[in-house]
Amino acid sequence: MRDVFHDELSALGVRLSEMCGLAKSAMERATRSLLDADLTLAEEVIADHEHIAALNREVEHTAFKLLALQQPVAGELRMVVGSMHIAADIDRMGALAVHVANISRLRHPQCALPEDVRASFAEMGARAVQLAGTAQEVLLSRDPDTAARLRAEDDAVDAEHRHLFTLLIDHKWQTGVCSAVDVALLGRYYERFADHAVEIGKRVIFEATGGMPVHKKLA
Amino acid sequence: MRDVFHDELSALGVRLSEMCGLAKSAMERATRSLLDADLTLAEEVIADHEHIAALNREVEHTAFKLLALQQPVAGELRMVVGSMHIAADIDRMGALAVHVANISRLRHPQCALPEDVRASFAEMGARAVQLAGTAQEVLLSRDPDTAARLRAEDDAVDAEHRHLFTLLIDHKWQTGVCSAVDVALLGRYYERFADHAVEIGKRVIFEATGGMPVHKKLA
Repeated sequence: MRDVFHDELSALGVRLSEMCGLAKSAMERATRSLLDADLTLAEEVIADHEHIAALNREVEHTAFKLLALQQPVAGELRMVVGSMHIAADIDRMGALAVHVANISRLRHPQCALPEDVRASFAEMGARAVQLAGTAQEVLLSRDPDTAARLRAEDDAVDAEHRHLFTLLIDHKWQTGVCSAVDVALLGRYYERFADHAVEIGKRVIFEATGGMPVHKKLA
Repeated sequence: MRDVFHDELSALGVRLSEMCGLAKSAMERATRSLLDADLTLAEEVIADHEHIAALNREVEHTAFKLLALQQPVAGELRMVVGSMHIAADIDRMGALAVHVANISRLRHPQCALPEDVRASFAEMGARAVQLAGTAQEVLLSRDPDTAARLRAEDDAVDAEHRHLFTLLIDHKWQTGVCSAVDVALLGRYYERFADHAVEIGKRVIFEATGGMPVHKKLA
């Protein structure tokens, strides 16, 4: 019975890692669709989100079943409860990639990004995808040191996000209000995507150490 | 032992309702600070958030303890797990009120809102506070019918949010890029605040009925 439980627990970890891989791929494609005004890619990201959402429901269902039938304690309890929080974080990451894709689709055939901020979004996109990749790896290895690295990787996204706002606010913005609004919201989506990856890292550290999870930063 | 458990379970519900009352008050004051360029109110909201954050940690800690020691099943299990999700939603609502307060503080002594959108934000603020009030009530009554009302209340926030974007994008926006960016982000904060209140309603319905929670909308 306990062997079956342990198999289910490690299957849950594999599932979460797969989900995180899907969110990573969604943000990678959403960023390309944004940079290249690629409508097909944007529509693909939007259509694919249901897969992540279905996995979120599946993880929650499995976790409930394990809590009810196996009544885990200590580290195993933390892992089962944590899996629900992590699945919810990954679902949000997927939803944020969809938001990026939605703006890309809305502005097609134009590019939503003025020339001035292309490099910023290429950078934020690459960093966000890297964060999702690290989180995906951490969900398999459960290594708290790699999980802690997520916070440092997030600092780079935050720095780029702040830089974007200096371009929007302090400089002479030439491309009008509509594109400024798009760029401000897009920046927010990347920042939040990265924050959720950091939350996953904190959960993994919590599961490994048993301390209460460090509180979310106010983003 | 089961009596103690039931007392702890109902204390958890009271705690969540109190937390929701704090988030409601935070958004009410953040909105007033935004409409009146009131720096003191803004700083109050920002400083007070730690209280909500501490309650979130406390709820998570209590829920873990109940899962480990009482090993609840069925409806009680749903309630304990749900309390963690709900506390996280309320914590985000508080954080979003802080975001509103931050923009109000940043623009002080100016008002962050141009005249054209004051009425929109007064309306969204009132609706958001009403949603938090309904959620607060639902967390005590656990009445699924009142919980279902949250979704209809949210529709009014979404409608006002869409209206705001027509003002930003379609009309001739006169007050520059910086204020457009503020207004776009502020609109997003109110919309997300309302979404989290709706999530609380869905959780309460789930706890009452035992079906899996309806999936989050893509906001």
